[in-house]
Amino acid sequence: MSEHRLGPLRFHVDHRHLDGDGGPSLRICDRSGDERLRFDCFRFEPHYHLDDASDFVAFGPVADPVTWTVSELRRDLGGYLARTGCVDADGWSPDELDETLRAVESSMRNPPARLDEIDLAVLKTRLSEKWNTYPSEIHPAWVAEMDFPLAEPIRLVLERALDRSDIGYPIAPNETGLREAFRDRCLRLYDWTVDPRRVEILTDVVQALYVGMLAYSEPGDGAVVQTSIYPPFFDAVRETGRELVEHRLIAPIAGREMNREGYQLDLEPLRAAVDERTRVLLFCNPHNPTGRVFRRDELEALAELAREQDWIVLSDEIHQDLVYDGFEHIPFATLSEDAASRTVTITSATKGFNIPGLRTCVAHFGSAEIHRRFNQVVPRHVRGGIGLLGLYATVAAWRHSDPWLAEVRGYLQKNRDHVVDFVRSELPEIRIQPPESTYFAWLDCRDLELRPSPARFFYDKAAVALSDGGNFGPGWEAFARLNFATSRALLDEILEKLAKAVRNR
Amino acid sequence: MSEHRLGPLRFHVDHRHLDGDGGPSLRICDRSGDERLRFDCFRFEPHYHLDDASDFVAFGPVADPVTWTVSELRRDLGGYLARTGCVDADGWSPDELDETLRAVESSMRNPPARLDEIDLAVLKTRLSEKWNTYPSEIHPAWVAEMDFPLAEPIRLVLERALDRSDIGYPIAPNETGLREAFRDRCLRLYDWTVDPRRVEILTDVVQALYVGMLAYSEPGDGAVVQTSIYPPFFDAVRETGRELVEHRLIAPIAGREMNREGYQLDLEPLRAAVDERTRVLLFCNPHNPTGRVFRRDELEALAELAREQDWIVLSDEIHQDLVYDGFEHIPFATLSEDAASRTVTITSATKGFNIPGLRTCVAHFGSAEIHRRFNQVVPRHVRGGIGLLGLYATVAAWRHSDPWLAEVRGYLQKNRDHVVDFVRSELPEIRIQPPESTYFAWLDCRDLELRPSPARFFYDKAAVALSDGGNFGPGWEAFARLNFATSRALLDEILEKLAKAVRNR
Repeated sequence: MSEHRLGPLRFHVDHRHLDGDGGPSLRICDRSGDERLRFDCFRFEPHYHLDDASDFVAFGPVADPVTWTVSELRRDLGGYLARTGCVDADGWSPDELDETLRAVESSMRNPPARLDEIDLAVLKTRLSEKWNTYPSEIHPAWVAEMDFPLAEPIRLVLERALDRSDIGYPIAPNETGLREAFRDRCLRLYDWTVDPRRVEILTDVVQALYVGMLAYSEPGDGAVVQTSIYPPFFDAVRETGRELVEHRLIAPIAGREMNREGYQLDLEPLRAAVDERTRVLLFCNPHNPTGRVFRRDELEALAELAREQDWIVLSDEIHQDLVYDGFEHIPFATLSEDAASRTVTITSATKGFNIPGLRTCVAHFGSAEIHRRFNQVVPRHVRGGIGLLGLYATVAAWRHSDPWLAEVRGYLQKNRDHVVDFVRSELPEIRIQPPESTYFAWLDCRDLELRPSPARFFYDKAAVALSDGGNFGPGWEAFARLNFATSRALLDEILEKLAKAVRNR
Repeated sequence: MSEHRLGPLRFHVDHRHLDGDGGPSLRICDRSGDERLRFDCFRFEPHYHLDDASDFVAFGPVADPVTWTVSELRRDLGGYLARTGCVDADGWSPDELDETLRAVESSMRNPPARLDEIDLAVLKTRLSEKWNTYPSEIHPAWVAEMDFPLAEPIRLVLERALDRSDIGYPIAPNETGLREAFRDRCLRLYDWTVDPRRVEILTDVVQALYVGMLAYSEPGDGAVVQTSIYPPFFDAVRETGRELVEHRLIAPIAGREMNREGYQLDLEPLRAAVDERTRVLLFCNPHNPTGRVFRRDELEALAELAREQDWIVLSDEIHQDLVYDGFEHIPFATLSEDAASRTVTITSATKGFNIPGLRTCVAHFGSAEIHRRFNQVVPRHVRGGIGLLGLYATVAAWRHSDPWLAEVRGYLQKNRDHVVDFVRSELPEIRIQPPESTYFAWLDCRDLELRPSPARFFYDKAAVALSDGGNFGPGWEAFARLNFATSRALLDEILEKLAKAVRNR
């Protein structure tokens, strides 16, 4: 339950669970603490009460009961109160009303996330890739899905589609408000002004990489990929017939600890590897799998190289929502006007809010020229249609789900600390650099010499599925990626299994 | 409630609605009518009872309670009965058991569709294109969405995703069983053997047309489009830089009635219009907007021309599920080996089952050669990712939702008859040919001379949104397309509005 004040009034929000029904309930109490108004924004028959529960008024069919409630109160809180005979119907400014209602709305839309309440047996009935690829006795900790319950505003998008059999065509994707939600969020989070007209809606990051490769290079041209890297980066280069220009992140080892600063972008070898046929930089920040969040000085040096070399930068920033305390995500396109003009920023709500199955992603173009080239390489319809639920779920994520995200990020940060502590104490042969973002631990297993690979070893001996380092680039075969986006209890089960397998080796 | 027999046993299926819970319930009674077993496949805590309600056994988390129930009974019906002391635990063959369980499963998965129970006020809160494009006072009867509730097996796909927060990555689409469901359905409905390896999963028909245009022709080549036609056919030709070869369907008029046979494919003018640069036929059968279902002799003549001219045929058969009594859908690829070898069959569950917002479609290639060319023109990832829910909803539609489809088709057929009768009696200046398929009435309003167009006239004067004939090709400006996939009550409201507008003109 949360409480908000407005002049003499108190607004109480709680989340009620009735049998198959329920939803947020807002009570407005006067200065003596008596309840004057109650808005029950339930799934079935949302309604309000004046003064006491006997006076029940159904909202009728409304698009969204919370939106309706907040807009009614914004329009005429005084009138509603007057109908109850309340004398406390003034004593606030419009700005105060607005601020209170924003806080009330956020509380109404976001019940506690209950991230600890995860049932392994239910997870095993999921149809998604993480839970549906390996046999039931294997604990999956590989592909980038979280085990947590959905953010409530996103869950409601699905529930409403269900209640209304509302799975028709999306109105033109540009009219769902998604691009404007992206713009508003960029401004709020990064003080970055983007033009919604420079935003394309795509199905996923990988599609954006492929189309970008076709748009900004010719067959045989070179593309820089910074390894270790999310495997589809390699595919996007290879399958479009471009040449891979590999740039290895340095994973320095000093004794048993890695370099304190973690994986580094060393630009000297990169400078030596490129030539005039190198046209595109496939960038990933926050970086998957290392979890690095590149600092401004690192980004600026890279942007300077991109400028010198006249590269287009395809910047996958999908992990931007999962950056931990002490680190800051800086969109590449915000570095300078020149950087903006050569950058395609690719991001999505599907990572931070855990809805990859809804297939919705945005690409922002820093100049009209690169936007035009992207849309010109294949007709837009070749890229396929975007689903109704993904569009609205993304808007719900970006407009209404920040409280859920904050809870998840906090939870993941503690998991991150726990994984690092556990590995350092129980699996000291494995080197680990605390990830600054992402829910991955990139495990350097080189000293263990696990055959045929660490992921394969842990699959066979620990019944845990990790991602195999070899897929993240040549030279990374002795690494494995662990996904720690699960409850602490399940994470501990996973970690214990890994440690036991190494002990019994 | 439905009843099925197996030897001395009776299987009763009903669909229970508890408060926010509920689902199918199966009771198995012995020869004296006493209930021995009950399986309550409810959303929350599915369970079964032995003998009486006091003995309650939870299924535990299972992927699908109906699947679990049927497979348990297939495996060990006798054992379950024996545990209740029932002496009627034999007297059937494995084939009889299988047949009964199939019927039971179908009953359990398909409660009555309640197609009449549509609330206009709730429809107005839908987010889909049909209900979210025009102001609330306009009654939409345009874009191809139905107003009916979802088929229960599809609704369950969404409900389960919701209950389990299961919106992760789809496993590789080919492993969802979608291609096999398509194969099995083609065999069942058309005695057509397709190879699942020749099936590509796409987002939508329009994407398939665009990729097909790129794959099978060069800029400047000609593509045949048979007008009037679903408007994106024109876009697919124009936006890929191909030349439109227009082939008008004949809409013959004899007095006040159209030709009894309706819109005809006259191949002579087509033959005269094509040349060696004409490479592709964009075919649509059942035909949108005329509702024609082409007969075998018509198809064979067209296939012969395709052979002579060596065309690739992109055959949009998405309306195949909505063919009315007396007509038969014949997949173009089944006409002959030659026809198969040059045909891409494009279809989807999204039309018949009303889930276009889930963006899932299949393309079947009649030869390895045309399959290869399709996949070669752009890398597969350029076509984008397919959503988890669309994949599983399509499987649910094709495997489990035929009873819903039969109800819908019967309902639409009556609506079709009603529209034709109404137009002929109340709007006699409008010519109408009874559609043989689709839920569209293609209204020939030429005699009414409605300005600026019939659709615009009815929007302004009747507050009904139809599709404007002019979008279906040059020369069709005096036509309008009416969508009659709604309840009879709402359809009558629409028809009365149209008639009144014409009377008051």
